[in-house]
Amino acid sequence: MTLLHDTIAAITPADAVAVAAADDRQADLTKPPGSLGQLEALGRRLAGIAGMCPPPVPSDPVVAVFAGDHGVLAAGVTPWPQEVTAQMVANFEAGGAAVNVIARQVGARVEVIDVGVVSDLTAHRGVRHHKVRAGTADLSIGAAMSIDEARQAVEVGIAVATDLVAEGADLLLTGEMGIGNTTPTACLVAALTGSSAAVVTGRGTGVDDEHLARKVAVVEAAVARIAGTDDPLEVLAEVGGLEIAALAGLVLGGAAAGVPVVVDGVICGAALLVAARLCPDVVGLVVAGHRSTEPAASIALEELGLVPLLDLDMRLGEGSGACLAVPLVQVAARVLHEMATFSGAAVTDRS
Amino acid sequence: MTLLHDTIAAITPADAVAVAAADDRQADLTKPPGSLGQLEALGRRLAGIAGMCPPPVPSDPVVAVFAGDHGVLAAGVTPWPQEVTAQMVANFEAGGAAVNVIARQVGARVEVIDVGVVSDLTAHRGVRHHKVRAGTADLSIGAAMSIDEARQAVEVGIAVATDLVAEGADLLLTGEMGIGNTTPTACLVAALTGSSAAVVTGRGTGVDDEHLARKVAVVEAAVARIAGTDDPLEVLAEVGGLEIAALAGLVLGGAAAGVPVVVDGVICGAALLVAARLCPDVVGLVVAGHRSTEPAASIALEELGLVPLLDLDMRLGEGSGACLAVPLVQVAARVLHEMATFSGAAVTDRS
Repeated sequence: MTLLHDTIAAITPADAVAVAAADDRQADLTKPPGSLGQLEALGRRLAGIAGMCPPPVPSDPVVAVFAGDHGVLAAGVTPWPQEVTAQMVANFEAGGAAVNVIARQVGARVEVIDVGVVSDLTAHRGVRHHKVRAGTADLSIGAAMSIDEARQAVEVGIAVATDLVAEGADLLLTGEMGIGNTTPTACLVAALTGSSAAVVTGRGTGVDDEHLARKVAVVEAAVARIAGTDDPLEVLAEVGGLEIAALAGLVLGGAAAGVPVVVDGVICGAALLVAARLCPDVVGLVVAGHRSTEPAASIALEELGLVPLLDLDMRLGEGSGACLAVPLVQVAARVLHEMATFSGAAVTDRS
Repeated sequence: MTLLHDTIAAITPADAVAVAAADDRQADLTKPPGSLGQLEALGRRLAGIAGMCPPPVPSDPVVAVFAGDHGVLAAGVTPWPQEVTAQMVANFEAGGAAVNVIARQVGARVEVIDVGVVSDLTAHRGVRHHKVRAGTADLSIGAAMSIDEARQAVEVGIAVATDLVAEGADLLLTGEMGIGNTTPTACLVAALTGSSAAVVTGRGTGVDDEHLARKVAVVEAAVARIAGTDDPLEVLAEVGGLEIAALAGLVLGGAAAGVPVVVDGVICGAALLVAARLCPDVVGLVVAGHRSTEPAASIALEELGLVPLLDLDMRLGEGSGACLAVPLVQVAARVLHEMATFSGAAVTDRS
């Protein structure tokens, strides 16, 4: 038995009784039926995750930002140098990145986890140290990591979820940093959905035509190499990334703990695809925070049947989109607690 | 000279220098250029409104919920009885409506203004009393109100904006309550954009086919009656509503005070169309909070060239969508204050 196996075994589907209770309650609140749109769907989802209605209103949201490096940078898929991953980790610690600013506004804490940065970050006291290996190998010429390393990285995510929940977190948000990580992401989404490399591969942080052409070629070749591979851990090992594996673990760990996980953009969407292959029930236990402009993001959401809360033309990552969704999650739960009913408020229902 | 005239004269377009400064600053922050999408566009808009970069981060958002009744209920356009307007005013006062719950979550205050409810609300101490008349006349058989009443109602909105800003509000949100008010809204959007009654008229709170058919017929006849009318105040008087007129005034008053106004869904969108006809500069001085599912909402936004922040399939009104946009507005401003720059954080820019 492994932590991964035990965690999957502990996950139960959304609670149908609580979902039905949420639907009944929505119908009795002082508003036209259905008029809160996606917030009503979100409220019933939160009830299903919590197994109670009304579901708890999250008061301690935590964004877990997993950082890792990517050997595929050697194939020239991005103009950003690898050292930016570690520099941005320092920026997260100092509170100067976009995710820090957004987290402060919505009352979320930022936790940074080194699961695979090339640089030695042990001197960084604001970082949780769970390095599985110092960056992946170049997926354009072989497996990014071993299957055992992929499992270890997933288990880092599970352990972080468990730790954060034990420390009080009642809403988990997925975040990531890893220069080059839209390339493994495109590979995973292509491999797990059957989409072509040209369709899933985008400009990531904004690469030019030359980088994009190289990126598409790398994705195409890598996905062709693993054709027929069904085991999600093996796909992850071949064409994934360490932070992506850990994100899949965070989703599984949150689901096992009964805590909602808000999934950020394209990298996290690929991680969710992996988690859903390992345990299909997780799809009903997460919240899609936003739609990244990166094409693979919409393909992953569509495959999973998820509708994101926000669509702001963002493509920053870090967990920025998931953080922005926090007030919507809180409102959706709070509506079920605090709104008046027609009878309670003496408001006449329509004839 | 009237308050309306003076207010329009006091409105200046968005400040181009501050907008350019916001663009320069966005480019220097530790993120790929453009990766915050609509939040960057919002930051530059806020800078333009404030005339400074970074723009102030709003700390005292106030949703002004204008309430009014509609004589057109006599034509059978909705199954909800007129008394619900006053009942919902009481629900707002008691804090039990959706807008109250959302406002509490985002730290906004709710202010309710009676500009035209049929019932006598003078005993309601939590309401601001600015009744122009006790409901409009039935627009299906004649003008909803006189041009002078329309101007008075607009001036109520201006005065409320001025009062709220004097009391400390630094972000104004539009809200409304008025059973039947999607009918005058559809009339206004049809009259001011040239769209047909069948296209602009929706199900509002969720009317059935029979009510919808009556509603379309009413809108078609009313718009035909005022064909050729160009004066926005006259259009408002003929087919508008008292709370809609006041909302147009709130937009004008906020713009004159240099305070951003977040516009809610379809009713407020129609009010914004009226305000924009009175003073085209206001379009650059407001924020479109969300896209209502009501068809006239998208038609009004398109006509004004505005892209809403949220699209959550909502159609509740009350200011609920505008309130949900508050954290996005705060984040957009805060990013310009608090995010690190590439040089400041020692992050390498791409090669």
